[in-house]
Amino acid sequence: MQLVASGVKQALTRSSWIRRMFEAGIELKKKYGAEAICDFSLGNPDLAPPPQVRQALEEIAAGADKPFAIGYMPNAGYPEVRSALAAYLAKEQGVEVAAGDLILTVGAAGALNVVMRAVLEPGDEVLCPAPVFVDYGAYVWNFGGTLVPVKSLPDTFRLDLPAMEQAINAKTRVVLLNSPNNPTGVVYRQDELAALADILRRKTAEYGRPIYMLADEPYRFLTYDGVTVPPFLPLYDYTLIGSSFSKNLALAGERIGYVVVNPAMPGKAELLDGLVLAHRVLGYINAPAIGQRILLKALGAQVDASVYAARRALMAEVLTAAGYEFSLPQGAFYFFPKSPEPDDVAFVGKLLEEKVLAVPGEGFGYPGYFRLAFCVDEAIIRRSAPGFARARAKV
Amino acid sequence: MQLVASGVKQALTRSSWIRRMFEAGIELKKKYGAEAICDFSLGNPDLAPPPQVRQALEEIAAGADKPFAIGYMPNAGYPEVRSALAAYLAKEQGVEVAAGDLILTVGAAGALNVVMRAVLEPGDEVLCPAPVFVDYGAYVWNFGGTLVPVKSLPDTFRLDLPAMEQAINAKTRVVLLNSPNNPTGVVYRQDELAALADILRRKTAEYGRPIYMLADEPYRFLTYDGVTVPPFLPLYDYTLIGSSFSKNLALAGERIGYVVVNPAMPGKAELLDGLVLAHRVLGYINAPAIGQRILLKALGAQVDASVYAARRALMAEVLTAAGYEFSLPQGAFYFFPKSPEPDDVAFVGKLLEEKVLAVPGEGFGYPGYFRLAFCVDEAIIRRSAPGFARARAKV
Repeated sequence: MQLVASGVKQALTRSSWIRRMFEAGIELKKKYGAEAICDFSLGNPDLAPPPQVRQALEEIAAGADKPFAIGYMPNAGYPEVRSALAAYLAKEQGVEVAAGDLILTVGAAGALNVVMRAVLEPGDEVLCPAPVFVDYGAYVWNFGGTLVPVKSLPDTFRLDLPAMEQAINAKTRVVLLNSPNNPTGVVYRQDELAALADILRRKTAEYGRPIYMLADEPYRFLTYDGVTVPPFLPLYDYTLIGSSFSKNLALAGERIGYVVVNPAMPGKAELLDGLVLAHRVLGYINAPAIGQRILLKALGAQVDASVYAARRALMAEVLTAAGYEFSLPQGAFYFFPKSPEPDDVAFVGKLLEEKVLAVPGEGFGYPGYFRLAFCVDEAIIRRSAPGFARARAKV
Repeated sequence: MQLVASGVKQALTRSSWIRRMFEAGIELKKKYGAEAICDFSLGNPDLAPPPQVRQALEEIAAGADKPFAIGYMPNAGYPEVRSALAAYLAKEQGVEVAAGDLILTVGAAGALNVVMRAVLEPGDEVLCPAPVFVDYGAYVWNFGGTLVPVKSLPDTFRLDLPAMEQAINAKTRVVLLNSPNNPTGVVYRQDELAALADILRRKTAEYGRPIYMLADEPYRFLTYDGVTVPPFLPLYDYTLIGSSFSKNLALAGERIGYVVVNPAMPGKAELLDGLVLAHRVLGYINAPAIGQRILLKALGAQVDASVYAARRALMAEVLTAAGYEFSLPQGAFYFFPKSPEPDDVAFVGKLLEEKVLAVPGEGFGYPGYFRLAFCVDEAIIRRSAPGFARARAKV
């Protein structure tokens, strides 16, 4: 008898080769020891949280024997945390943001699910430039929608605006953007985003229903060579940002994020009410209380991001020496090199034989490439050089 | 233009009178001061967390400046927390439970959503004895299912087994039970549950598809007069429990719960894989890291529950003196008295005029009653007596 829903069964089958790869990695580590493996498969930041995190936890501990210390608060979050985050985002985005324009969420993945729950009718479509983050499709499918990937321009991974415009129809409800991008490292430019906003403005008027522009930007803090991430909210009436502090505060496990609505959105109260309702009925209820209070103390602080620039340079050196083709990431901590053979899954298998763990581009709907997460020690990057060279030579 | 999905718009409209009531309460508190209001509307436990919570937080603080201190862990939770919880549940349920039989979740509400996502096909039905917890319907609707409430027996609120059997059809996928029950305070007996399990065994065989029996039991620790909550897992092959530590450890805001699958379920691996996938793609990713580590330290401890028995006795006294009809709760911290007039919403309005906040039975799909949460100080219960009497006299 089938114990799970058909869609879940299909998803399990689809992701099974990624799981096999992951399990192969675990086997390798057991067999040769973790230090023999160069694991570039996971975006789990390895930097220490800033000292404010420890200070916040000490303060929370000191008050933890009081009633309501870790009790429920309003579904949207502690009012003082919402206010502090609103002030922070106002500065970042260059627009007035009020506490009531945002809700605290269970990470960015929670934020995106809450938005999808709140706005998607069954059959609606969500447009996303490909490659796409592994689970975006499922976030949309959860609520009866369909993710429509639109291939980014070859090599540069910039937005293919004419292709995106052509893909929009009366069912299009959201355009989902991730910048700095996982897995490509691209940061979308102000002019690209403004041109996309123009298209959405026209299409929203044409269909009489808002097409939201939703940014997922947990890597906003991490760019290289002076690249800046343009503010997103002022681009267009119907913008939202879903993001998290998983990377800049090294808090990934505690699940603390937010969704903020463009304060200038016409009729925004209905959407904000809908987001709070979705947050409650999806079972999140509220973002973790301790994570919220850590955020209040640590907002504005961040991990020592300078180490990523050095790792990026080293990784580029290793890949170049081994003869790989790639674009240098402008932000985040991923490379997305071209697979030396068309079958990226097969090539990731060859890397695996060399004890180098990567994720095939197929997992991002963009075969022919593979992803390397460089949130690992320089020693591991250095150690991986011979493996990269040997795998390349086997093609 | 409509900013939210139609179903969300409907849900906002439906819940708007509850919101109005809630907002009226806030207004009252502003006007007369919080101490003038007797607020029985919220199940937010007011007891201090046990000392282990503070100790755990101190230990977490001490290590919080290390890399990965609050990083990602496997989606199902820290392996050592799963193991400890498995041992705890084995003792509670009287069956062998392995770490792999459970996943840690974002509270019980998160656990229930994960189960619904994993097992429901669009159009499936979830049976639930009424009154039903306010948001159960939405948990099912989230994934295209329908909640089918089956009225419990009048006055005793026991399961109406013939009515439940009659409501089962080929679309029935889950029977959802909450015991000790919110809002009625009923604890289902071993013989009632065994009889229900017999029905489900027959119907599962008839339709060739498992009908799950899912318990939501965050109040298991809180019963009165020597009543015990029968173990749930051994009742039937296809049982699951979704629960949380919100109430017994006073951790409601941190969102830490679990879902455990009957270790004897045939083919359980598929379901467990599906639950882990659902947990990831619903955006929870993992239960909060800090909450998990608090649980590891505090598992087995609990708030001082003896104070609830005294409050229950006092509340019963107040209600009896004012002439209300009610069954004494066997567990949890709610009374569900009969409304002195058929229109429970109107009567809750009369209580509001007396500065007493309650939730109408209509919010639980059971009009003609109202809910009082007695997780408040005895002084508040005592102070409410004249208000209860005056509201009653106005009918």
